[in-house]
Amino acid sequence: MSPISDAIIALESEVRSYSRSWPAVFDRAVGSHMYDENGREYIDFFAGAGALNYGHNNPVLKKVLLDYISDDRVMHSLDMFTTSRQEFIDTFNELILKPRGLNYKLAFPGPGGTQATEAALKLARKYTGRESVISFTNGFHGMTLGALSVTGNSLKRGGAGVPLVHATPMPYDDYFDGDYPDFFYLERLLTDSGSGLNKPGAVIVETVQGEGGINPARYEWLQNLSKLCKQHDILLIIDDVQMGCGRTGTFFSFEEAGIEPDMVCLSKSISGYGIPMALTLLKPELDVWEPGEHNGTFRGISAGFATATATIREYWSDDSFTKSIKDKGEIVAKRFQSIVDVTPGITVTAKGRGLARGIEMASGELADAVCEEAFKNGLLVETAGPSGEVVKLLAALTIPEDVLNAGLDILESAVATVASGELANSASTISKTEESFA
Amino acid sequence: MSPISDAIIALESEVRSYSRSWPAVFDRAVGSHMYDENGREYIDFFAGAGALNYGHNNPVLKKVLLDYISDDRVMHSLDMFTTSRQEFIDTFNELILKPRGLNYKLAFPGPGGTQATEAALKLARKYTGRESVISFTNGFHGMTLGALSVTGNSLKRGGAGVPLVHATPMPYDDYFDGDYPDFFYLERLLTDSGSGLNKPGAVIVETVQGEGGINPARYEWLQNLSKLCKQHDILLIIDDVQMGCGRTGTFFSFEEAGIEPDMVCLSKSISGYGIPMALTLLKPELDVWEPGEHNGTFRGISAGFATATATIREYWSDDSFTKSIKDKGEIVAKRFQSIVDVTPGITVTAKGRGLARGIEMASGELADAVCEEAFKNGLLVETAGPSGEVVKLLAALTIPEDVLNAGLDILESAVATVASGELANSASTISKTEESFA
Amino acid sequence: MSPISDAIIALESEVRSYSRSWPAVFDRAVGSHMYDENGREYIDFFAGAGALNYGHNNPVLKKVLLDYISDDRVMHSLDMFTTSRQEFIDTFNELILKPRGLNYKLAFPGPGGTQATEAALKLARKYTGRESVISFTNGFHGMTLGALSVTGNSLKRGGAGVPLVHATPMPYDDYFDGDYPDFFYLERLLTDSGSGLNKPGAVIVETVQGEGGINPARYEWLQNLSKLCKQHDILLIIDDVQMGCGRTGTFFSFEEAGIEPDMVCLSKSISGYGIPMALTLLKPELDVWEPGEHNGTFRGISAGFATATATIREYWSDDSFTKSIKDKGEIVAKRFQSIVDVTPGITVTAKGRGLARGIEMASGELADAVCEEAFKNGLLVETAGPSGEVVKLLAALTIPEDVLNAGLDILESAVATVASGELANSASTISKTEESFA
Amino acid sequence: MSPISDAIIALESEVRSYSRSWPAVFDRAVGSHMYDENGREYIDFFAGAGALNYGHNNPVLKKVLLDYISDDRVMHSLDMFTTSRQEFIDTFNELILKPRGLNYKLAFPGPGGTQATEAALKLARKYTGRESVISFTNGFHGMTLGALSVTGNSLKRGGAGVPLVHATPMPYDDYFDGDYPDFFYLERLLTDSGSGLNKPGAVIVETVQGEGGINPARYEWLQNLSKLCKQHDILLIIDDVQMGCGRTGTFFSFEEAGIEPDMVCLSKSISGYGIPMALTLLKPELDVWEPGEHNGTFRGISAGFATATATIREYWSDDSFTKSIKDKGEIVAKRFQSIVDVTPGITVTAKGRGLARGIEMASGELADAVCEEAFKNGLLVETAGPSGEVVKLLAALTIPEDVLNAGLDILESAVATVASGELANSASTISKTEESFA
Repeated sequence: MSPISDAIIALESEVRSYSRSWPAVFDRAVGSHMYDENGREYIDFFAGAGALNYGHNNPVLKKVLLDYISDDRVMHSLDMFTTSRQEFIDTFNELILKPRGLNYKLAFPGPGGTQATEAALKLARKYTGRESVISFTNGFHGMTLGALSVTGNSLKRGGAGVPLVHATPMPYDDYFDGDYPDFFYLERLLTDSGSGLNKPGAVIVETVQGEGGINPARYEWLQNLSKLCKQHDILLIIDDVQMGCGRTGTFFSFEEAGIEPDMVCLSKSISGYGIPMALTLLKPELDVWEPGEHNGTFRGISAGFATATATIREYWSDDSFTKSIKDKGEIVAKRFQSIVDVTPGITVTAKGRGLARGIEMASGELADAVCEEAFKNGLLVETAGPSGEVVKLLAALTIPEDVLNAGLDILESAVATVASGELANSASTISKTEESFA
Repeated sequence: MSPISDAIIALESEVRSYSRSWPAVFDRAVGSHMYDENGREYIDFFAGAGALNYGHNNPVLKKVLLDYISDDRVMHSLDMFTTSRQEFIDTFNELILKPRGLNYKLAFPGPGGTQATEAALKLARKYTGRESVISFTNGFHGMTLGALSVTGNSLKRGGAGVPLVHATPMPYDDYFDGDYPDFFYLERLLTDSGSGLNKPGAVIVETVQGEGGINPARYEWLQNLSKLCKQHDILLIIDDVQMGCGRTGTFFSFEEAGIEPDMVCLSKSISGYGIPMALTLLKPELDVWEPGEHNGTFRGISAGFATATATIREYWSDDSFTKSIKDKGEIVAKRFQSIVDVTPGITVTAKGRGLARGIEMASGELADAVCEEAFKNGLLVETAGPSGEVVKLLAALTIPEDVLNAGLDILESAVATVASGELANSASTISKTEESFA
Repeated sequence: MSPISDAIIALESEVRSYSRSWPAVFDRAVGSHMYDENGREYIDFFAGAGALNYGHNNPVLKKVLLDYISDDRVMHSLDMFTTSRQEFIDTFNELILKPRGLNYKLAFPGPGGTQATEAALKLARKYTGRESVISFTNGFHGMTLGALSVTGNSLKRGGAGVPLVHATPMPYDDYFDGDYPDFFYLERLLTDSGSGLNKPGAVIVETVQGEGGINPARYEWLQNLSKLCKQHDILLIIDDVQMGCGRTGTFFSFEEAGIEPDMVCLSKSISGYGIPMALTLLKPELDVWEPGEHNGTFRGISAGFATATATIREYWSDDSFTKSIKDKGEIVAKRFQSIVDVTPGITVTAKGRGLARGIEMASGELADAVCEEAFKNGLLVETAGPSGEVVKLLAALTIPEDVLNAGLDILESAVATVASGELANSASTISKTEESFA
Repeated sequence: MSPISDAIIALESEVRSYSRSWPAVFDRAVGSHMYDENGREYIDFFAGAGALNYGHNNPVLKKVLLDYISDDRVMHSLDMFTTSRQEFIDTFNELILKPRGLNYKLAFPGPGGTQATEAALKLARKYTGRESVISFTNGFHGMTLGALSVTGNSLKRGGAGVPLVHATPMPYDDYFDGDYPDFFYLERLLTDSGSGLNKPGAVIVETVQGEGGINPARYEWLQNLSKLCKQHDILLIIDDVQMGCGRTGTFFSFEEAGIEPDMVCLSKSISGYGIPMALTLLKPELDVWEPGEHNGTFRGISAGFATATATIREYWSDDSFTKSIKDKGEIVAKRFQSIVDVTPGITVTAKGRGLARGIEMASGELADAVCEEAFKNGLLVETAGPSGEVVKLLAALTIPEDVLNAGLDILESAVATVASGELANSASTISKTEESFA
């Protein structure tokens, strides 16, 4: 394989994005490190946008996967029964659902997160007989038409090519910096028969918005949302595609809020090895589907079931993993806060929960500059937020503390470099301005 | 793992379907054989609904995959450059596109076929500025809202929970048994400014409808459709998710028709090993996407790139694979025709192209009975068509002739058994009727 | 009042249309004559696009109206009971519905025809629980969004500014010149569960398409449509806005077809004096409306009730009016046929029913030329059809035979003039062509 | 005419509403009095829901109308030029637009208010290329699908039978009792590229919501809305169908707010005599319509033009009419306030502007009781608001002060009667409660 070939790049659609920020050709990856074709090492604070919570090529899962493949076990099976599928269902129920007192049926809606949300929305509409759904500002739920209609980003919405309808955006937690009471507008619309709001069948929400800029909703806000839904007979769908599977510390991101959603969407790290898999959990009483009413070719990736089962057994049999995620989350929180403290004006705030963390910069340009500087120094970190203004850390949950700190060092230094350049620019602007008055 | 556990089954949503027809728990699979947890062997005429064109755990691909995983190469990478991604793009261009004189850019729209069609529809609408799309009776394109709106099946459409709009169904080839000229209605609607048809931006079509009942469109029909699209400045999208990757003999199913679609959707067997992967091909001039305007977590499954590259090198470097598919297709065609010939009234017709073949039965009940009987005798074969009236063969393209014939023997015998039972029933019905007059 | 003032014209939106064809300022009108501000007389073959079936300022109705206004009787009353409203309902029931064996409830949906169709579509959707509606090529049902979505004309549809959805166009009678069986496509779509057609709640149709180009549906076609609707539990809505109130001879245009629609839309000539009024008739069992669920300010124009009652008493107490309309229709038919006979190549065909008659010209340009020439000679006649290619006669049903013949003389002469000019042009084209070869 | 006939009533659809509240058959009407078939007199505080601002059968207009009809002037003319149409346009421009410094083109969109709003919405969407529209809580704009989609009332929305999309409701002025800043939510959504709001082409708003419960927006709120629209390149449509033509004092209801909307919708009292007529005013630069792109049969009711011209000359040549409306508005305001003052708990607040006034009662049941009691005593007054909780006064603007006061006396007495009954009920409830503890 040659170095990055322009001819090959030209064959790919302009829609590609990450390869623009990170112009390297990656080849190998282990844990929280990636290596490009020239052997250069990078620390990974991106983790496949949350699809690699257990790190790259996690050795426990790797062994399971190699054995699975070596033994010619079933790789692809739609929704046929397979030993690995049944084992996954059983393990998920015994080690994840039961200990948390949760009672859900499992549907495998296809390979990606967008299928998990599409399936949830379809079922919510069928069950309630209502088309309308409440979404939240800066929410992200997928790129197929049903999921895109509840997604906030205007660039992505614009790509639909048809008007996206049937969803009404409501303010996410803290959208007004705490100035107004929670749900004051939604509640009013729901209780006013003249409000013009089509009565919604469901609310879809992330407990921490990832793509939206690492915005954690307070537990109280989630509790109030849950209550409001119950009062008005509206189904509550938690999209845990990015924040589930331990990202915020607990397996489900909503556990500590003490709520019990009607449906939960999982994908990304559910297989644990980057193998596409998705899962929609539903309260048993909602299961009004006809056989085959929703389906898809890749709704039974049996190798994914095998690694998924292994992640549960390895990481979720007790609460030690949760503790370690929270500890590392605290490390990041402190380091981020100290970065923010020393670069006022350049950075705005540190935020997040568990190992979903962000530094909000004063602009998207500054955030880009930080990520570019970090990349030069061997760190993969990307931005989020409506203007790309948040530097986002989604490290593997298994990242060793020394690697985490090494990455944070690079990041801290990148912010400092950008800040000093920025200050220099400001200074030069000021001096130019002064000159012009001279 | 215990035998099929009712408790585990009860945890899964009622939406599951294949496990109802085939109440076995599968564990291993090699080539065209699957084995259940008790070691019972089944011949597979289903091939993952077309996702396993190269057979289960194909040894050539298996070696590539095991090496890939053993070497800790990048498994998941969104749209970052990776050596395996670049190698796939290069190989696809050199061995697939160039030899066929095709000029397309590649977009990786997510892990499943539905993402391939959603991306194509989104881009077609953006490029043309027109929302409306022409679909065809009994077409199948996916289960997310955009793809579902161009899908014919009423059960699946009903699951949407919102009105599916922006698509108008037109008669597929032979919908009227050749009684009317091709496109007489579509052409009239397009040329009549008072027709009430919203001018479409695109037409989406399968060259052989798989889920719709193994309906092959004549090449002439496809050619005329292509001409009509050009005349009216409408983009032609071929959904080759099930019929591409050699299913009909050639790599693309439209090659022998001599048409050049504006976009092509691939998935299912593109990775070759049942790993979820999808690809949307687009004429370069259509590439008006902004970076990230369409995206998705699983749009770069690097292990899939590796196996995909291996399938191309192994099977598509010359035309020997095409020849073998066609030869086996002819074997099936002859056997199916002879089955039809001996069971008039029970079977209606044999149809298909390459190794996408079907026997249309007189009813869905009869087709179910045949599949059930076949399953009892160790053959996995399913139905298709609006009433499930077609017994559908989608064997692996690599199936050895002896296994193919062994499966066909079981199928032939199953049809005969059903036919004799049916005749017995008819006889008994007749005799009962006669009795009632006695 | 000054002559046509450019300053005043410039104050009106470019959306105005008739004043472009007929650049005169009209002031008075009696029966089938209109007079412009300079006293010039025109014969009117337009009759307010069918709103003046009883002629301009019909003296019988004029007296009723003057008395009504002079006596200070209620002019405007929404849906309050008024003596004139109750009298109209009673008269309509006694003299129109009962003698025809029809059993409908009356709803007053607002002042215009578009309200009559919107109300019918809303009720059909509510009653059936299905959003989708079948419309027909070149149908015209109104300009508000609900009615526009079932209208064929692409210019008018384009004005909506939103995608018009929920309707699927089907071929109107004779759309293929009798080459294919009636409803072969609609019937197939309805019976095929994989067709992709959203099951419709209603069919909306005109018995003779007016704006669409004076296309009369055969009675047999209407009967078959009615049967098909019953078979598939679809409501049949006849839009009799333009073709009702005697235009085709009988009061309802569907009487002679012997069908009984589920709903009927009336407007235009229902008041008889050009006063805006509309009426939606519905089978009693369909009346699932809540009080006020559909309403509108001008749903009780009591002066309109008074004149409407007078039209019924004067014209519809026996069948003499029907006979006279048919006789005059025959006169027009003969004259139109003879025009067509003598101008082959320029004219295409004569068509129509009752006093809805048209001459299809070889092009919209020719039809415009005929109307322009007719206007110069004192005849008001307009075009219809998707390309404006039909010269359309909608004379008052009360037009005296001598006035009818005088108008027809002008029209005949206009066609002859256009034909001779056209032939001259052709000749000159030919001679030029010949010259170029010289 | 017999008394109210049950047989005749049974012929009308259940959708009728006013005749349920006022079970009388009205026959004659003069000024602010209506008379039933038995000669009983009623004071009219309803004025055709705002269609009779100049009173029933206003003698000035009556003379114009009788002369117009007697002289056989053109009654119906679509959009042909007529002397009365040109005179109206000229007069409207000279006496209404020019003195107010307004520059609009006129479009006649059909006979009713819903057509005026449909035409405005269609043009706004065509001009901006954006489908989405902002509407307000408890707004009312019409009953055809386009207008209904921006209307708040859930009963009426439910009647659509299709999901109403393309509009997002925002809080109207004072929706939160002044607790939050104006437009804090809309502004935030518009400036946040991740908000999920489809960028709107237009905002449609009433300056005082009539059907919504007589809610006057503060001028400051309207000014801020106008600024916000300009900042974000969104068209501002004022629906002045009910509040225009002097209802709030000035001809246009937005005059005193000092704003200049991009489009204005007029209907109801524009003809002045209850004759259906509508008008859409548009800034000249917005006039991108093609000829005939929006049309309708009743878009040129020439008798309506004649009376409309007469209303302008009679009432709007100077500001004396405005002064008289305001004076009478003040009378009502004081009387309403004093009613509210003496019935705390039963009444909530008095509100309104000009002669659009309301008393908000503690419940819809109480408001109904007041109207029923008023009717018994010869006053026609109806309710408004999402729960019908507002007793609404829309008297003719020409009502003499003595008649106004006589009506107010009846209303005051009705409230008192209801209040005393209510108090008695409460007392009896209390005593019963006390008994139960005894």
